Amino acid sequence: MIEDFQHVCITCRDLETSVRFYERLGLEVIEPVSELNEEAIARAFQTSTGHVKVLHLAPPGAPSKMFIDLVQWLEPASTGEAYPAANHIGINHLAFRVSDVKATTTALRERAASVFSVRNRNVSDLCEPSSPPIPMECSFNSSNGSRGKRLPDGASCYTCS
Amino acid sequence: MIEDFQHVCITCRDLETSVRFYERLGLEVIEPVSELNEEAIARAFQTSTGHVKVLHLAPPGAPSKMFIDLVQWLEPASTGEAYPAANHIGINHLAFRVSDVKATTTALRERAASVFSVRNRNVSDLCEPSSPPIPMECSFNSSNGSRGKRLPDGASCYTCS
Repeated sequence: MIEDFQHVCITCRDLETSVRFYERLGLEVIEPVSELNEEAIARAFQTSTGHVKVLHLAPPGAPSKMFIDLVQWLEPASTGEAYPAANHIGINHLAFRVSDVKATTTALRERAASVFSVRNRNVSDLCEPSSPPIPMECSFNSSNGSRGKRLPDGASCYTCS
Repeated sequence: MIEDFQHVCITCRDLETSVRFYERLGLEVIEPVSELNEEAIARAFQTSTGHVKVLHLAPPGAPSKMFIDLVQWLEPASTGEAYPAANHIGINHLAFRVSDVKATTTALRERAASVFSVRNRNVSDLCEPSSPPIPMECSFNSSNGSRGKRLPDGASCYTCS
């Protein structure tokens, strides 16, 4: 019955700041921002109210049709901090497929130097220092998902919460 | 440079319990469990050690090739609780594409009655009551991602953390 993944929802503190971050990564807005205030949202998410700003992002031309549902809650307001570590229970990070990890990390450093720093040859740290900061963790993988290859080839990227 | 999404990593408390939960949803193990204890993992995730159990899950035949990287940390152990609410900052939930939301929710209730309860016509609550509980939030969407249709048509499903 489940055919495929559809989206991941990322709750952010400030939509405009977060969008700039994802655009620097190379994602594009596929559905522009809109503000919604609907009882259906409150019902769906069991919140007191359902007042949000939301847009959708995806890698340009991504075959999967998957997208990021980026949401800033206005009422109730976005709150809290993203998971502080990889061993924290929950949906811990999001990974992107790239054709060439080294080229991607190099390009991202050039494009977004202020947010990108390589800690070692396998791991890159992607941290948005602006305020409010961006809640997101992602990693880049050029492999087909094979664990044996994933870490040596992958550049794991994290943002501060 | 980013071609597509590759995976979402979900850190769980107990891998065997979590796998049963995802299999009840209809996902299948596409890479069997293995136990790893590698310095590269610790480096990549900036943890003291890198001792994990991990497997991959995906909807059968999903065109996206995306998968869930399900990880139980052994050392340091999995810890913490999943986000308690939709307005909590971070990667908040994961959504699946289904051909028919109503049929899917009905089938899931039959297949996994103990974990599935419908709260209203739009929202279904998916909660694994076993101990240790499962950290996951997901929603089902039959729409193409249009926000206008998503909530009325979608059944959002959450697990307890």
